[in-house]
Formats: sequence, structure tokens, C-alpha cells
Amino acid sequence: MNRSELINLIREKQSFLCIGLDTDLNKIPSHLLKTEDPVFEFNKAIIDATNELAVAYKPNLAFYESLGVKGWNSLARTEQYLRQFNVFTIADAKRGDIGNTSKQYAKAMFDPESSGFDFDAVTVAPYMGEDSVQPFLEFDDKWVILLALTSNKGSDDFQMMTSAETGSRFYEEVIIKSLQWGTESNMMYVIGATKAEKLEQIRNLVPGHFLLVPGVGAQGGTLQEVAKYGLNQDCGLLVNSSRGIIYASSGEDFAEKARDEAKKMQVIMGGVL
Amino acid sequence: MNRSELINLIREKQSFLCIGLDTDLNKIPSHLLKTEDPVFEFNKAIIDATNELAVAYKPNLAFYESLGVKGWNSLARTEQYLRQFNVFTIADAKRGDIGNTSKQYAKAMFDPESSGFDFDAVTVAPYMGEDSVQPFLEFDDKWVILLALTSNKGSDDFQMMTSAETGSRFYEEVIIKSLQWGTESNMMYVIGATKAEKLEQIRNLVPGHFLLVPGVGAQGGTLQEVAKYGLNQDCGLLVNSSRGIIYASSGEDFAEKARDEAKKMQVIMGGVL
Repeated sequence: MNRSELINLIREKQSFLCIGLDTDLNKIPSHLLKTEDPVFEFNKAIIDATNELAVAYKPNLAFYESLGVKGWNSLARTEQYLRQFNVFTIADAKRGDIGNTSKQYAKAMFDPESSGFDFDAVTVAPYMGEDSVQPFLEFDDKWVILLALTSNKGSDDFQMMTSAETGSRFYEEVIIKSLQWGTESNMMYVIGATKAEKLEQIRNLVPGHFLLVPGVGAQGGTLQEVAKYGLNQDCGLLVNSSRGIIYASSGEDFAEKARDEAKKMQVIMGGVL
Repeated sequence: MNRSELINLIREKQSFLCIGLDTDLNKIPSHLLKTEDPVFEFNKAIIDATNELAVAYKPNLAFYESLGVKGWNSLARTEQYLRQFNVFTIADAKRGDIGNTSKQYAKAMFDPESSGFDFDAVTVAPYMGEDSVQPFLEFDDKWVILLALTSNKGSDDFQMMTSAETGSRFYEEVIIKSLQWGTESNMMYVIGATKAEKLEQIRNLVPGHFLLVPGVGAQGGTLQEVAKYGLNQDCGLLVNSSRGIIYASSGEDFAEKARDEAKKMQVIMGGVL
């Protein structure tokens, strides 16, 4: 999906909601555990109930990998199921390695002839620098979502370090350097909502780029704050909620309750757009 | 595998060789492509031919993921096959996410009841800080191999940045901070061999830790230099070679030629130990 298609989608749906599919066998309703592929059945029901309200879905690959080969199969079925809907799909994989290896990770996420997967975007870790990111940018209409400022406690350990050379924080260095690698049409940044006040400064560095903002809900950020500091003229935001939506109920009404939670967020989003 | 078992293994085999299983369908001998699972058949032949010479094997997960579900199945078969040999197994995965998610990645690599996988170690990216690393350290006799100084061109982009707060390079900060998280018995560091002269400084920071050194061979480092600067009294090194060994021949003699290359390295290693 290219940039103008994404912007149109946001306008049509009056939403910039991304739903995180952090699907955990220990948290999904027990009646699903009797099915052959509980993870896929859960995702399917969530997607069916929410796809008019969300513009993006973000499977968190760790939850699938934790189930081994079976989990990868559930992930593949989920990605294939999503193709029938007009939604942007993000592999939340935090990959990144030397160029030769990142090329393989890019095929894993973006080349259906090789891997069966055809995600629109993948989250990438910047530690190994340019050649670890570049191979993902070589696919048309695909996106790198680069980790910049994350929402977890450990984000203070290194991301907030100040560079003696430039006086910038490390996460700012990541943004500044990576502007040489990609464009507003193939690169986004992960900016945790728990640091919403930082969004204003970040908008000065990347006024036109999309930002993927996790941490609204379970991790503590608030949607209004994120919108206040983060919106640009093309929206420029994808706000992710995972647990707050998909685990809104642990009963048989889980999909309906997920829809209710997604609707609450979409209404606020419609109001600020 | 715990630290003393690893040290004993190195002494017995007179080797600190790690063989990287970067198995690529485009590079393996064509006669294998007719088999049902060419990736596994290739790995099996390489392992059969080299297991007396190598102390460790390191499947590079990108190469398996690029083949989707089928690739994960080949990876699972490879890891299970390795269990019969006295070798240390490393999932070269470069994972790392918020604590809640890293916990799932740890289960993916270390918890056979959940994922089917039972690797001894996993490579982890440090960008997201302590809580992204900690869940991997909660498994007994399992290891985190944290990215510090990598061997690729892009390693200069961020790893060499100087901290205004401490005057250290970023990769040194990663080592120094992570010393609070793990021990010599559950943490190693990735140090690229292309920076062999840096090994001396790094040994001052972590005199007792094991270092995983990729980049000997295809990426340009030399084994003697690495040994000169990197060895400690318990050896403290795992030197990885991937392409130089596994693709030594593209003919039907690939496993024999791989053994020859592995033997050359083991002989040098035996000499310096």
C-alpha cells in the first residue's frame, strides 16, 4: 500500500487506529481452545468485528514464534485473511541484521513468492545501521517502521543517551541519519505514546512522516495527547492498541467487546481529524 | 549448556569454532533441491561432516524465515537434529522488544514445551534496553548474546557514537550497562572480527565473558588476530564462520569440502589454545 492509499484509507474510515494482534493462548477465550487453530480463529473474529474501524493490523511476531512452527502457520493464515480487507498490515518483528541477512528478513515479510507473506510494513531495529535497513526499502509500496523512541522502561537505557558529536539524543540521531535512507513514502518511525510530549520535537525533525505510536492503553499514553502533538496535515499517525481492544472481554462476547473498544477510539479519532 | 560444560567442550575438541547455518536455497548444491526438505538435508550433511570440529552451530533465522512456514519447519528439524551431538546451539535472531514481548521471544527460542525449540543461546539487539533483554536471562543454562560491535559497514552509524555523559562509545555503553543485567554464565557479546584491534579494549571491560566473533572469512577478519586480542584463560571466544565453510563447494562434495575448511580452522584453534 502506498502513501496516498494509506491517507485515503484514513480519510474514508475517519480512523488512524492500528489493532495489535498480540494473540496469547493464555488470554484468549477458553471456548476457542477447542478449535484446531485457536490463534487464527481469535484473530479472524477480531478482524471481522473491527475492520471497518481500524486502518491497520499489527501482528506481534513474538506471540506466534512462541508457538513454533504452528504459530508461524497461524501468522500466515492471519496475514492471508487480512488481504481481503482494505487495511494496512504491519509485521511487528523488530528485525535488523547485516545487509546480506536483512535481505532475507525483507523477503520473509515482503516477498510472497519466497515466504508466502505479503505485509505492507515491518518494524526494524536501527542498532546495526544503514545496511541493516536498506534491503527492506528496496520493495515498492512497502514500508520500514524504524524504532526511534520506544514506550518501555528500558527505552531510557540507550535511546536517551546524548551524542557528544552532535548534542542530539540517540533516538534523534536515528531519525536524522535515517532521513538519508528512506522517504516519507517508505519509512515511518515508532514513537511510544508514553513520551507524548516528545512528539512535538519529533514533528520538527519529521514533519511529513507517519509515526506508529504504540502504548496507548495498556502502556499508559492517552489518545488526545498523541493527537495534539502528533497529527500533521495528512494525519501522519497510526495509533496502536493491542490488549485494550483484543482482550476487552475474556468471554464469548470478546469480538463484540473488542468492536466497542475500537469504536470508542475511532469516534475520538474522527473528532480530531 | 552451562559455562563449565562449554569450556570443557572447547578443551575436548580443541576448537572454538562456530559454524553459521546461513542456508540459502540459491547456494546449496542443485542435487539437494530434488529432496523434500533441501534446507534440512543440507544442514544435516554439514553437521554430520563437521560436528567433531565445531563446538557450536548458529542457524541464522533470516534464511529460514525467508521461506515462511516451510523454512521454520526446516529450522525446527535442524535444531532437533543438533540435540544428539555435544554442541552449543545459537539462534541468530537479533530479537528484542518490550519486556512483555521479549518474554514471548524467549519462549520461542528456549521453551520446547511452548515452541518446540531448545536453543542454548539467542542473539539479542540492545536498542530497547534492560527489560527487552531480561526475559531471556530467566532461563537456566541459557544465554543471551548481546549485539555490541557488529562487523557490518553500518556498525559505524550508531555503535561508534560517543556518549556526552560518559565519553564512552555506544557499543561500550551497551557492554557496561548490561554487566548489571547478566553474568559471565548467561551473557556473551557479539564483537565483529573486522574490528579485531578493538578486542583488546573490550577485554578490559569484560575480561571473563565469552565473545561471539562473526566476520572471520567472508567478512574479512582473520583468526590469528582475533585469537591474539580475544582469548582469555577459559578461551572466552566462539569464532563463527558461515559461507567460508558451508559453501566451500557447490558440488556433491560440499560436506567433505566443508569439513576440510572446518579442519583448517580447528587446527589453528588447537594451536592457539
